[in-house]
Amino acid sequence: MTAITRFDLNADLGESFGAYSVGNDEEVLRLVSSANVACGFHAGDPSVMMRTIEAAAQRGIRVGAHPGYRDLAGFGRRAIAYSYEELKADLIYQISAAWGMAQAVGVTLSYVKPHGALYNTMVRDRVQATAVIDAILAVDPGLKLMALAGAPVLEWARAEGLGTIAEAFADRAYLPDGTLAPRSQPGAVLYDPEAVAAQALSIVRSQSVGLFAGGSIEVSAQSLCVHGDNPEALANVAAIVALFAENGIAVGA
Amino acid sequence: MTAITRFDLNADLGESFGAYSVGNDEEVLRLVSSANVACGFHAGDPSVMMRTIEAAAQRGIRVGAHPGYRDLAGFGRRAIAYSYEELKADLIYQISAAWGMAQAVGVTLSYVKPHGALYNTMVRDRVQATAVIDAILAVDPGLKLMALAGAPVLEWARAEGLGTIAEAFADRAYLPDGTLAPRSQPGAVLYDPEAVAAQALSIVRSQSVGLFAGGSIEVSAQSLCVHGDNPEALANVAAIVALFAENGIAVGA
Amino acid sequence: MTAITRFDLNADLGESFGAYSVGNDEEVLRLVSSANVACGFHAGDPSVMMRTIEAAAQRGIRVGAHPGYRDLAGFGRRAIAYSYEELKADLIYQISAAWGMAQAVGVTLSYVKPHGALYNTMVRDRVQATAVIDAILAVDPGLKLMALAGAPVLEWARAEGLGTIAEAFADRAYLPDGTLAPRSQPGAVLYDPEAVAAQALSIVRSQSVGLFAGGSIEVSAQSLCVHGDNPEALANVAAIVALFAENGIAVGA
Amino acid sequence: MTAITRFDLNADLGESFGAYSVGNDEEVLRLVSSANVACGFHAGDPSVMMRTIEAAAQRGIRVGAHPGYRDLAGFGRRAIAYSYEELKADLIYQISAAWGMAQAVGVTLSYVKPHGALYNTMVRDRVQATAVIDAILAVDPGLKLMALAGAPVLEWARAEGLGTIAEAFADRAYLPDGTLAPRSQPGAVLYDPEAVAAQALSIVRSQSVGLFAGGSIEVSAQSLCVHGDNPEALANVAAIVALFAENGIAVGA
Repeated sequence: MTAITRFDLNADLGESFGAYSVGNDEEVLRLVSSANVACGFHAGDPSVMMRTIEAAAQRGIRVGAHPGYRDLAGFGRRAIAYSYEELKADLIYQISAAWGMAQAVGVTLSYVKPHGALYNTMVRDRVQATAVIDAILAVDPGLKLMALAGAPVLEWARAEGLGTIAEAFADRAYLPDGTLAPRSQPGAVLYDPEAVAAQALSIVRSQSVGLFAGGSIEVSAQSLCVHGDNPEALANVAAIVALFAENGIAVGA
Repeated sequence: MTAITRFDLNADLGESFGAYSVGNDEEVLRLVSSANVACGFHAGDPSVMMRTIEAAAQRGIRVGAHPGYRDLAGFGRRAIAYSYEELKADLIYQISAAWGMAQAVGVTLSYVKPHGALYNTMVRDRVQATAVIDAILAVDPGLKLMALAGAPVLEWARAEGLGTIAEAFADRAYLPDGTLAPRSQPGAVLYDPEAVAAQALSIVRSQSVGLFAGGSIEVSAQSLCVHGDNPEALANVAAIVALFAENGIAVGA
Repeated sequence: MTAITRFDLNADLGESFGAYSVGNDEEVLRLVSSANVACGFHAGDPSVMMRTIEAAAQRGIRVGAHPGYRDLAGFGRRAIAYSYEELKADLIYQISAAWGMAQAVGVTLSYVKPHGALYNTMVRDRVQATAVIDAILAVDPGLKLMALAGAPVLEWARAEGLGTIAEAFADRAYLPDGTLAPRSQPGAVLYDPEAVAAQALSIVRSQSVGLFAGGSIEVSAQSLCVHGDNPEALANVAAIVALFAENGIAVGA
Repeated sequence: MTAITRFDLNADLGESFGAYSVGNDEEVLRLVSSANVACGFHAGDPSVMMRTIEAAAQRGIRVGAHPGYRDLAGFGRRAIAYSYEELKADLIYQISAAWGMAQAVGVTLSYVKPHGALYNTMVRDRVQATAVIDAILAVDPGLKLMALAGAPVLEWARAEGLGTIAEAFADRAYLPDGTLAPRSQPGAVLYDPEAVAAQALSIVRSQSVGLFAGGSIEVSAQSLCVHGDNPEALANVAAIVALFAENGIAVGA
């Protein structure tokens, strides 16, 4: 067995809009290796997208599109009953915009990671999953789909010939079936940077996550999703990066 | 001198939005050779864009992006004091979306024609013109800019190495300086299909347009802008196509 | 028993947006007695709202607010997972806007009829129903809620002291439980103007609607919902008005 | 002459939108006596409006509507070529929404202060000023218009019978003609809390502001506009409040 010496960290970036500034994109960009760039429907605007892709390009960070439902007021977090055709078109539009912007900046768009309520729906819902897969293939079959490790959508994507990136969460408790414990459940979110970093290392080294009730499950991922919206989240990311360094693992896609 | 046997007619298409349906896109697509596809900021939505580009592709019609200000409520007809950076980013976003959709459909995006208040401003305003030119070059230097024959923006574009398509109007009176008579002026718009067709033929054959006050001016164009929003407009287009046919001129890009 | 000599017809109006014109508001306003005015979130804009309320006022037609989800792209027809607080605030905002516009025009806003997916959800969903009821009471407790005859929301509203207007449909087949047959079901929509008018008269005279499978159910309503988006729909309304006239029933709120 | 013992401080509040949080509304509400509540077109959303009006009501602070152009992406700071009818309708809509929300909360909407590019245009532009004045009168003739002390719009408003509140700026340099020095000019913005507080006291006590070039001009105002978006701005407000207190002037409308 070859020891893993490099692992990807991805974060949502470019979520500011007009005069509204959110996130700590500069600091997050120093820590991660993949940037999920919001595409203007649930967050982000064209100027923010350009600046975010340029900043990622300057640091050699992998760039992905992060499209969502057309719901700026709800930040893409509200389930919307989209039809297949509407969703596919809304996604082709957003992915194309990111694709063209990346090209304008001189980098290649590498993957697509849906946002919020769209993400939660498409990991299991066949109609929305198919809209996501078909939209990505329509724009560029070389793009990959990033989604929750173990989710049905990843198999459906591979069955259509679409490359995938399975992601796991270092700061979320898992249930025995491999899904994330809902945030409403006590202990669902890990707040201790050491615990977060330990789970991250376990995912990378052993492809496993310990369960609350004892025992562990297999979580086979190529990327870890991290957040940088607040100082606590940034501390978690820093702890992961530090523990990785101690173990000879570089952050990289 | 070689007789001209083919000339381009372009029309704005894909301006419907959600449940709101406008235009007679099917009928117009039977008559023109270039489709200016609205890009979602002043009109159009992703589903409409897809359908419009698909319909144009099926008929072998040249596809262009028709971006505008972010002003759905004003249909892009209200002047907005954009900064260079904001405008360039909004345009890269829209053009990229159209570019990717064309690619998804299997055709090539050929040109960009700005809409409404943006068009009127950029033909002469150096800042907005430069934002348009730079945005097009950023997405794809093979794209061309379509704008009013004789307008300064065409020279500025060529100076930056950007290809251009000069367009003229068969249903508008011209002033001695080569600009269009403002719509508020009596006689500014030609309503008689025969007169419209005659002006079209004059532009194609003689590169000239007769003036209201007598005499004529040179109008050197590679495309004619036509409209199809109402039966009268469609009748004008039909008259142009018929007169062209009589004179051995096919409609084509 | 006193014969009914007057009955209310209500229709959705003011659904145009910016340059997008839909409906036949002028013709519909000649036939109905209650105008459900779109409030700008799913359809309508402030200029259209003003013109619509002014036109209704000139004809002495009762004015109601017709608020919907914030989803212009989906025309308010897509279910959105709103929280109680968000929905209540979005509705207070829209109802207030219509209330103030009515006041500006010199008429009184009389009722609120939610639109599309919001209507379909709130007739049975307790959370969204409560948001609707609380929003109306917050703006003006003198307003009434218009909703489907027999729907739970009407009882919930009355329990909170809110006045109600039960509406029925002359052009839709009913199921034995008093709900509307889904549009996907054959025979769900009545297209024959005579059949539509007959069902209207039956609702007014006998408070009953015949069932497809035979027999009939009680439908106790104070208003009939009619449509005017196309010539067929207008023909249905005209047939109702004519049959009412033959039977000594005036159209009126 | 009676000494002034009370003076109004007004600030823009409720400018957050959905997941986007801006400003320090809680802290600002502790310092000011009038709250200009954003109305959803350039900033703010219905949930934020409700919370802001409720918070102002709890502190007994005067509530005003702060409407702007329909331009969330530009935060209402970009000039837009509105027609009179469009602008009047957009303003009636926004003011009505705020009026109804205030009523829902149990307070009275007191005044209207336009935002950003609309403010800058309407202080001098007759068409936009008239749209503002007519919109306010249409919703509630008891409302007042708040605008820059000395600006023509205040006279135009009074000529139509509309009450006015003239506001001045403690942190901006004035030009000899009574207008504000443009921000691009060095010294246009005062950053020293002591200087800001001194100008505030001068406006309240002497109705005068010292000029950069020496001398002073008369500035007759009933309110001072303050900002709270950042710690420096808050420090200025605190300095004004403190100097007022030393001089026996309470903050109050």
